Amino acid sequence: MDEAANAINSICYQIAPLDESWRAAARERQLTLTKPPLSLGRLEEIANRIAAIQQANTPRLAKKRIYVVAGDHGVTVEGVSAYPSEVTAQMVYNFLSGGAAINVLARHGDIEVKVVDASVDADLSGRKELISVKTMNGTANFARGPAMSRTDTEAYVTAGVELARAAKADRVDLLGVGEMGIGNTTSASAITAALTGQDPASLTDRGTGVDAAGVAHKTEIIRRALTVNQPDPGDAIDILAKVGGAEIAVMTGIIIGAAVEKIPVVADGFISTAAAALAVALFPNTRGYLFLAHRSVEQGHIALINFIGMQPLLDLGMRLGEGTGAALAMHLIDASAKLLCEMATFAEAAVSGKK
Amino acid sequence: MDEAANAINSICYQIAPLDESWRAAARERQLTLTKPPLSLGRLEEIANRIAAIQQANTPRLAKKRIYVVAGDHGVTVEGVSAYPSEVTAQMVYNFLSGGAAINVLARHGDIEVKVVDASVDADLSGRKELISVKTMNGTANFARGPAMSRTDTEAYVTAGVELARAAKADRVDLLGVGEMGIGNTTSASAITAALTGQDPASLTDRGTGVDAAGVAHKTEIIRRALTVNQPDPGDAIDILAKVGGAEIAVMTGIIIGAAVEKIPVVADGFISTAAAALAVALFPNTRGYLFLAHRSVEQGHIALINFIGMQPLLDLGMRLGEGTGAALAMHLIDASAKLLCEMATFAEAAVSGKK
Repeated sequence: MDEAANAINSICYQIAPLDESWRAAARERQLTLTKPPLSLGRLEEIANRIAAIQQANTPRLAKKRIYVVAGDHGVTVEGVSAYPSEVTAQMVYNFLSGGAAINVLARHGDIEVKVVDASVDADLSGRKELISVKTMNGTANFARGPAMSRTDTEAYVTAGVELARAAKADRVDLLGVGEMGIGNTTSASAITAALTGQDPASLTDRGTGVDAAGVAHKTEIIRRALTVNQPDPGDAIDILAKVGGAEIAVMTGIIIGAAVEKIPVVADGFISTAAAALAVALFPNTRGYLFLAHRSVEQGHIALINFIGMQPLLDLGMRLGEGTGAALAMHLIDASAKLLCEMATFAEAAVSGKK
Repeated sequence: MDEAANAINSICYQIAPLDESWRAAARERQLTLTKPPLSLGRLEEIANRIAAIQQANTPRLAKKRIYVVAGDHGVTVEGVSAYPSEVTAQMVYNFLSGGAAINVLARHGDIEVKVVDASVDADLSGRKELISVKTMNGTANFARGPAMSRTDTEAYVTAGVELARAAKADRVDLLGVGEMGIGNTTSASAITAALTGQDPASLTDRGTGVDAAGVAHKTEIIRRALTVNQPDPGDAIDILAKVGGAEIAVMTGIIIGAAVEKIPVVADGFISTAAAALAVALFPNTRGYLFLAHRSVEQGHIALINFIGMQPLLDLGMRLGEGTGAALAMHLIDASAKLLCEMATFAEAAVSGKK
């Protein structure tokens, strides 16, 4: 077993299940606040979980960061996307210039954006603010063989874990993951099929905007990829290596690392949720630290939501990626924590309780 | 016809239908931004409507205000609420001290809160920061006769219109309405039954937390109120007067006034949406300026949502009121406008378009 594989396996001992005593204490505190019991609905559940993650009575989410991880996909040569693959690199420049949707939403939500080059098929070394973890310019075409070697895959996951550790060192309280990668809905659909055993036809959708014939072709390519590669449904690393992508592997690592470091982490949409599902498959305790931002219109997303067994916070018909849904959900998660911390109690405000 | 009634009737000529040319221009601009077409889902629809309301290519929602309108209800003597009616006044003090849920969420979302006393059954005149429009200490018990006179009701609606005008004078770009009033889910359910003709049993729920027997009793009181008062389903003012409340009438006025002043306005949950439905029933063009914040768990809410014909933005199992859902939704609405204004175009960012 190589070093990265060892590193990943040693992690499972570092992810603690949530401490239910902190959650119970938060639940008790909620009952003292000036509102009818449970009247804040899911915001209360979220805050109680944040309290358990931070092991704090008054959890704070002051510093927020989203990692936007970019990678290219060899499978684009099969004509699965509505956009040419050079858009991945062009969008990375857009992220660095602050002109993309995620930049607007991050400014709006007071969230720091860190852009990560996982496997962009372009030389981006001139941009020092870009975090490079790349070991390849695009994955191999997984319609003809594995996207990556197992060793590369493990190294990408480990790099993601290190990004979460860096966030902890920078005192980040709430993490989000988002992505950019032309072709990556094809990878996410293939991962979903491999993980859940469902028919790719029910898991494949328009991505950035292919038409009905394009969806049929994309489905056919995914079927071929599954036949050629035979990913092992019980081995998340095998699935990632064979039909995944570098940016997805890095996001899986960030989510695992966030659980190790006890940082709540928000998965964005379809592709980010594929990364989250793989993290949960590898280490089920990561689920305690994970939040799903929104329900994407990509039909494969629902299978991943069910696999993880957690409802997303938002349902706004979005399908952009980049962490855009995560940025919006982080405002709600921060709101839930602030409510728990800042609301007056019945006693403090001299408000009468229930009759 | 008295002065207030004249004032209300003259308003219908002041509410313009949305200018579709501005909406169409926004839709065109969306297609130039660096994202797949329509990939921001409902955020695009919202931004396009804000553009039409403001008649601007780059609409801005810099200044946000929520009016939290409080009132007491005579029907509480029938034992319809889990909390004693003095909680209304106690919560007004909590709002003024900044300790309620709405205060926390407003600080979080950079929203100004203005608290309005519509009919609180207490002398609150010592608090100068409170806006008083009150002409009564609580409505009459509508299980035995009308809650208010038609003249009082019209005056409350007019006072709400004036609050929207004041917001315009203060350069508010986005308004929200919320409420506090022990007993007011009973009023909202009765309004919903009167407006839609549906059976009160399907429109009545736990409110702040009565049990199943309490819901049955509340339903019975609503049936009695409808029988005793016979509100005219085609006359929103008659419904407001007979089974409404002062704070609901003021919110109806604020929503109408926002439409007059071309300010987008966000209704919060069940009770605020009852006010919005009455505003739409009075002047259908108000619908163009209205947003519904969230789907409350109160079962009567869905009938109002269907009556207005508009989907709420959030669905988080909330049932608190105060404008809490509106505060969270305002972050999303502002986000949508910022995306339209601040995202780079394909040309600016040198990003390739669809193949």
